[in-house]
Amino acid sequence: MRSKNKFSEWLNQRSPVQLIIIFYIIAVTVSCLLLAMPVAHKDGVDLTFMEVLFTSVSAVSVTGLSVVSIVDSFNQLGIVLLAVVLQFGGVGVMTLGTFIWLVVGKKIGLKERRLIMADQNQYSFNGIVKLMKGVFKLILWIELVGFLILGTYYLTYFSSWKEAYFHGFFASISATTNGGFDITGQSLTPFKDDYFVQIIHIALIIFGSIGFPVLVEVKDYLFASQEERKFMRFSLFTKVTSITYLGLLIFGFIIMIVLEWNHFYADKSWHEMIFYSLFQSTTSRSGGLATFDMSLLTEQTQLVTSVLMFIGASPSSVGGGIRTTTFALVIIFILTFARGKSKVSVFKREIFEEDLYKAVVVVLMAVGLCITAIVLLTIFEDSSLIAIIFEVCSAFGTTGLSMGVTAELTNISKVILMVLMFIGRIGILTLLFSFNDVTKKGEFHYPKEKIIIG
Amino acid sequence: MRSKNKFSEWLNQRSPVQLIIIFYIIAVTVSCLLLAMPVAHKDGVDLTFMEVLFTSVSAVSVTGLSVVSIVDSFNQLGIVLLAVVLQFGGVGVMTLGTFIWLVVGKKIGLKERRLIMADQNQYSFNGIVKLMKGVFKLILWIELVGFLILGTYYLTYFSSWKEAYFHGFFASISATTNGGFDITGQSLTPFKDDYFVQIIHIALIIFGSIGFPVLVEVKDYLFASQEERKFMRFSLFTKVTSITYLGLLIFGFIIMIVLEWNHFYADKSWHEMIFYSLFQSTTSRSGGLATFDMSLLTEQTQLVTSVLMFIGASPSSVGGGIRTTTFALVIIFILTFARGKSKVSVFKREIFEEDLYKAVVVVLMAVGLCITAIVLLTIFEDSSLIAIIFEVCSAFGTTGLSMGVTAELTNISKVILMVLMFIGRIGILTLLFSFNDVTKKGEFHYPKEKIIIG
Ligand SMILES: [K+]
Ligand SMILES: [K+]
Repeated sequence: MRSKNKFSEWLNQRSPVQLIIIFYIIAVTVSCLLLAMPVAHKDGVDLTFMEVLFTSVSAVSVTGLSVVSIVDSFNQLGIVLLAVVLQFGGVGVMTLGTFIWLVVGKKIGLKERRLIMADQNQYSFNGIVKLMKGVFKLILWIELVGFLILGTYYLTYFSSWKEAYFHGFFASISATTNGGFDITGQSLTPFKDDYFVQIIHIALIIFGSIGFPVLVEVKDYLFASQEERKFMRFSLFTKVTSITYLGLLIFGFIIMIVLEWNHFYADKSWHEMIFYSLFQSTTSRSGGLATFDMSLLTEQTQLVTSVLMFIGASPSSVGGGIRTTTFALVIIFILTFARGKSKVSVFKREIFEEDLYKAVVVVLMAVGLCITAIVLLTIFEDSSLIAIIFEVCSAFGTTGLSMGVTAELTNISKVILMVLMFIGRIGILTLLFSFNDVTKKGEFHYPKEKIIIG
Repeated sequence: MRSKNKFSEWLNQRSPVQLIIIFYIIAVTVSCLLLAMPVAHKDGVDLTFMEVLFTSVSAVSVTGLSVVSIVDSFNQLGIVLLAVVLQFGGVGVMTLGTFIWLVVGKKIGLKERRLIMADQNQYSFNGIVKLMKGVFKLILWIELVGFLILGTYYLTYFSSWKEAYFHGFFASISATTNGGFDITGQSLTPFKDDYFVQIIHIALIIFGSIGFPVLVEVKDYLFASQEERKFMRFSLFTKVTSITYLGLLIFGFIIMIVLEWNHFYADKSWHEMIFYSLFQSTTSRSGGLATFDMSLLTEQTQLVTSVLMFIGASPSSVGGGIRTTTFALVIIFILTFARGKSKVSVFKREIFEEDLYKAVVVVLMAVGLCITAIVLLTIFEDSSLIAIIFEVCSAFGTTGLSMGVTAELTNISKVILMVLMFIGRIGILTLLFSFNDVTKKGEFHYPKEKIIIG
């Protein structure tokens, strides 16, 4: 704590919630100003305030739901600005959010902070800033590689190299930030038979949504010497996140094959089935890009996809929803309870009671929130119930997959979805803390037990 | 514990879960045998095994969903037998269930038992049996009064007094046990303008579903002298249950008026609106009788009704669902967490952590269970999603309200609904305990804190 400067003191005086909300309002305002500029629009396009606002909220929260067609509304400048907003919203919020947890969140005593800091040996303010810079750089590198690969590959699709690399540029940012926007006008469906494009997109989406601590730890591991590796161990956070993330990917993959065997896959080849399922499972974490029309799926797949989007991506990532860790903790909690044990452990490490409480509250509140939103949307929209459920879960999970409801929403429903995108992105827990002054007074604590089993 | 006899020792050797499952299997088997008898059927009616089984499970769990028309399938004898099964399933399971909690459940250290026994001063086995007998008698009295009032009143509707009192007999049992079956062929719609009939039904449904400890305590209070009343206080269970029950009633009443103002109520008078809403709110607790066709409601009301049915009735009642107390504890839990407190109290009394854990697990598992059932039914049925959601919540809440899906289900969906009715009736917690041997070894305990605030 030696090198605290004025900025960090100012930060310390704001609560994390204040900071995140300030950041959001600034980000959305700036995004609105940028995207409202007529010079960013195609000729003859006149966007309403609501359209610009919705696009901005969707972009800052890297959701990808859109009430206008991006490619029909924005010119090249507009698309570049949108990419900047996505980068800002995705990586910026991720970095800032984590930064806030690390610096200011110490008052709350968050498990994530404890784990990360212990494992990264980053106790000082400078160390944290360095860590954040490292993450930011890492993501820029990922995006650059994605841009080069996709841009070069797109030379086979587009007549000019400018167009190819422009598409590569936007695709790489949209995939890595899990922005989910597209400038093809039909998401990734033009590449439904191009498995190379899909694999690159899958990789970028996963890099963005698996959580930055995982990225950092894996990077550190890969760049370490044989000798150093002996002393390295992955944090509990990384283990739980990665396994849950992978588990959800596999589940999403298998369930889609099972549910669509006689329907969507009835006339498809085995490799089409594998890639459609793989891409769909990945994109429903948080990506939002699609290789086919969601309304072609059976209602049961749409429902399961809704649940998967509701769960969302890892914390400290570019994704939303209740988060993979929350889901994992709740499952662990239920299993522990069902087995009649009162102490919860995983990977031979303790789980703090407060983390369980948090996870459970997040899920319960998220369920209540989404049900409320669904009921409200059935009042204001004529769409089918499944389409509404799908859209609500997509907004809360900041996924951006759509069954086409968003394009023709009433204004009040747009506001509801914007609120969901906002809450989904900042997380229920942040919202919860905004209702009390716990982060300032530090009153929030439950009894802790250290348990080492095995 | 002085007067334990052999029967109680035998009971002690069974786990509560074993007992309840044994009871269920016996009850459903006996019910199947009774209702399968051709002598109980109308001429020319030939019921399949699946139809008899579904009717039996629905009757034993006092749900009221039916794949056959009761009045078209069963003759007078069959209807009397059905009433007996309802009585057995409703009051029998309630009494037995509570009995088991009280006698065998002491190993689990259940809050309910503690509260009831402390407040009723019923510590001995004989005392408990006496209490159970009292409850059973109380319900018989309620049913008798209901029968006399309804039967006599029905003289204005039916040409013969036999018919009038027969209808009164069945209606009283179906309402009090929250059985939800009808012999009019169209539930209570013939009485949609008869507010007297509706009020009697509302009273009987509430008596059955508000929870027997409430009944007993209120009865004790009413029959006590002025002097005795000074020393009486209602248990925490009664307070929490009654207030939640009442709160849900009021919420259901208001929300229906709000959501149907321009739809179902557009052409109705103010008193029609009040009575339709009042009856619908009451019946969605667990009753299952209806004064109008559910498909006339807007999708939003159908959704909200589904949620209300999912919550269900009070524990230790004839109802199902997650139960009012569970709902209340979860709300209290979330509010406490949001306010940044770690200790939970209500009415200046402590809430045990284990009760919070239980409540949370019940809700999470119930949500998971119902979503799974909904996905499965969308696979096997062609019905609309809202109709499936409605039917699933109705089965889990053992409510029995229907949008007409049940009548034409595939066999696999019938099995799914039967499982839901079974779990909804015995309660998620009982199901949970069946996965571990906790009730035998008594390993299940969390740290407890006594908190007296105010
Ligand atoms: K997205
Ligand atoms: K019922």
